[in-house]
Amino acid sequence: MQDLRNKLIRGSGFHAPVPGEVECLDDVLIDVDPDGTIHDVLHPHQESYCGRLDEARAKGSLTELPEGVYLLPGFVDLHIHAPQYPQLGNALDVPLEVWLQKYTFPLEARYADTAFARRAYTVLVDDLVASGTTTAVYYGTIHDEANRLLADICIGKGQRALIGKVAMDNPAECPDYYRDASVGAAVEGTIGLIEHIRNHPDNALNRVMPVVTPRFIPSCTDDLLSELGAIAASHDCHVQTHCSESDWEHGYVQARHGVSDTDSLDRFGLLRRGSVLGHANFISAADMERIRARQAAVAHCPLSNAYFAGSVFPLKAALEKGLHVGLGTDIAGGPAGTMLDSARSAVTASRMLETGTDPELGPDQRSGRGGARIDFRTAFHLATAGGGAALGLPVGQFAPGYQFDAVLIDPQAPFGTLRLWPELHRGDEILQKIVHTASRPNIAQVWIGGVTAPRPEH
Amino acid sequence: MQDLRNKLIRGSGFHAPVPGEVECLDDVLIDVDPDGTIHDVLHPHQESYCGRLDEARAKGSLTELPEGVYLLPGFVDLHIHAPQYPQLGNALDVPLEVWLQKYTFPLEARYADTAFARRAYTVLVDDLVASGTTTAVYYGTIHDEANRLLADICIGKGQRALIGKVAMDNPAECPDYYRDASVGAAVEGTIGLIEHIRNHPDNALNRVMPVVTPRFIPSCTDDLLSELGAIAASHDCHVQTHCSESDWEHGYVQARHGVSDTDSLDRFGLLRRGSVLGHANFISAADMERIRARQAAVAHCPLSNAYFAGSVFPLKAALEKGLHVGLGTDIAGGPAGTMLDSARSAVTASRMLETGTDPELGPDQRSGRGGARIDFRTAFHLATAGGGAALGLPVGQFAPGYQFDAVLIDPQAPFGTLRLWPELHRGDEILQKIVHTASRPNIAQVWIGGVTAPRPEH
Ligand SMILES: [Zn+2]
Ligand SMILES: [Zn+2]
Repeated sequence: MQDLRNKLIRGSGFHAPVPGEVECLDDVLIDVDPDGTIHDVLHPHQESYCGRLDEARAKGSLTELPEGVYLLPGFVDLHIHAPQYPQLGNALDVPLEVWLQKYTFPLEARYADTAFARRAYTVLVDDLVASGTTTAVYYGTIHDEANRLLADICIGKGQRALIGKVAMDNPAECPDYYRDASVGAAVEGTIGLIEHIRNHPDNALNRVMPVVTPRFIPSCTDDLLSELGAIAASHDCHVQTHCSESDWEHGYVQARHGVSDTDSLDRFGLLRRGSVLGHANFISAADMERIRARQAAVAHCPLSNAYFAGSVFPLKAALEKGLHVGLGTDIAGGPAGTMLDSARSAVTASRMLETGTDPELGPDQRSGRGGARIDFRTAFHLATAGGGAALGLPVGQFAPGYQFDAVLIDPQAPFGTLRLWPELHRGDEILQKIVHTASRPNIAQVWIGGVTAPRPEH
Repeated sequence: MQDLRNKLIRGSGFHAPVPGEVECLDDVLIDVDPDGTIHDVLHPHQESYCGRLDEARAKGSLTELPEGVYLLPGFVDLHIHAPQYPQLGNALDVPLEVWLQKYTFPLEARYADTAFARRAYTVLVDDLVASGTTTAVYYGTIHDEANRLLADICIGKGQRALIGKVAMDNPAECPDYYRDASVGAAVEGTIGLIEHIRNHPDNALNRVMPVVTPRFIPSCTDDLLSELGAIAASHDCHVQTHCSESDWEHGYVQARHGVSDTDSLDRFGLLRRGSVLGHANFISAADMERIRARQAAVAHCPLSNAYFAGSVFPLKAALEKGLHVGLGTDIAGGPAGTMLDSARSAVTASRMLETGTDPELGPDQRSGRGGARIDFRTAFHLATAGGGAALGLPVGQFAPGYQFDAVLIDPQAPFGTLRLWPELHRGDEILQKIVHTASRPNIAQVWIGGVTAPRPEH
């Protein structure tokens, strides 16, 4: 199947506009506009179903998916450090503050070399698209050229992406070899990337967007944080940063600013609709309330948390408070790069938060977090509609006005790992199997804005 | 590459005979006997290296692996419920004792239907071999015909396997529709399968072995447990069962027998060299000591534990006490079926045991398990050499006298997920990347006893 713009698609699949609920789309018609927006979704019981089907068939605009494959909304990864992809699966042995200096800053500094950046970013974007990540929120590096390159690659490959120049100018926390030379340099790089992306000749649909990106408070001076807050407002940009990620980071902000990380970000104007806070493991109830009031969002990165946060983000509590939450891989803090992995990790981590982990304690002492669990339904929501809502973008569900960003799951794909047993499983049990056991080969096709993404086989 | 029996293999790879230590095998020669046993492993610095290389080249018995691929020992999965494969990824919402009655016994009961059993077991064995599981320890069902079928399929496909008839005769815990009719019936089924396997005309090498399999103490009457202990001794068989898996199960045995699960199994003669105890999350220091004294082993099933044990097995403590430990997927208690997934989960779970999970507690209150973490080195050891040692079988490492059971990792494989950066990573960092990020397509080839396993693409 090629381009699905201006087509009527007939097929089955799943989406989850609401946390904890899955809607099975059985033999629906999805009408996609010429620009890739979903015009309408029709169910077989609707009166106009047959008429529209016949009409499209007559016009030659009908695309019928084969039996036994499933459409899902494309995945939204809210937290990716693009330059860290080469260390995915490595560098997991030291705490965050050591990891940055020992592994991560040296790796990110390499992106001064544009040839290296091109090679790494090409593989990354190809791999993410092939894994079904149709919207990616990327941290770049401090390097203007490499950041523009990442934007160009995403635009070229058609991936929906938010891309930020990492701003980090604090000499106390950033090494000489990898630091913005001044507040002015960081501001210039930030605005330069915003303009590059917004004025890009091939980006008329704004599929790629800029995002103001203070690395996190420890890496930035107060002057820079103020400037970045102002840019977010004046340029009406998304924001991304880390918030209360680890005990160390949480304590650092408290010690430096005398308030919580959340409150401090808010004072700098960085807590806005469209702000994405990475991790947020140690936010308090008051922090949650403030994040909700600002309509900012949390990027829950469950696998990374096991290695760098030393705790599990209280996801269920955040959802119950009405926060926007989506999922992130946190490449390469988390050693897996796909949203299916991220969704699985979210389910597993929630169970380990609910029960606790230490078998020497009695079941009642082991944990005080009854009710913390989520299941595949919520994880799938977070990986799709939740991520879209966090960004305020019309992606992550099959509904009128939303973009046709989708993946096609083929259980029969060669080298795939998804086995369905039609006599045993139906309805959302099939989705559960997809979430827990599908893998890259099962993602047979990916569309972004109705356009087929290339499927590299490297 | 086909059959590697009677060949001299030249290539690179990794193995880990000792927990926590990885040996990089750079450009070694592995000399495989005509029967698939490793005769010798030669390193380039050894005097005889060049002579042997030239000799094999002259004889035409040299097989040179291409540059950039890596040999690993085949994986040993110590805990698989073969009949549960159709529910892999499903049925994760209720506690163990409910799960058995609601999902698992009804599914296992279907294996009275031999056609269903043939279909399910064929897919399972194909998938496991393709995922690199060269040695599999299987629970079957209560059905003699389906159990023999599983043995026949493993023998036919060349997988090294231990297969047990599940014995479960306790009417208080097993439903009428899925229970051994009597102690006698369970004993007869157990001995019948032992004889079927040991006398099988195509199993002269004993690649498939029987294993005495009381499901777990709750499912069995004391009479049956005694009989099974006697059979293990008289027939010199491996044993597998579950031990202290969940709070409920641990408490059940304490209440019924007035001693720990471990002690109770020991009294019935079920704790022997070659006994594999699934999970063992709640064993005490005294239990560990007894398991060590009996030279029995634990099958650590980290992913399953998150769903059914409500705690993390104290792996590091067990290793420090000198217990035999390997890894199990616990298909389908754990929602992933491969040993790479199991190894990753073991690393992640160990971190969550070390730190605890509840962010509302201070870092010191969150956990009392400092030092619980393992890394990829120990996880890889457990998935290979540790599993082999647990079973007392010469598999899981490249050393003289061991079987040439191996997987070939190809980072360039189509649809693969392993990206290596030669300028960034070397030595065991490459293995770390394999453990954390490789997937089924990257397993380009599998050998068992030197023979190439078929690579189904379904
Ligand atoms: Zn991050
Ligand atoms: Zn089990």
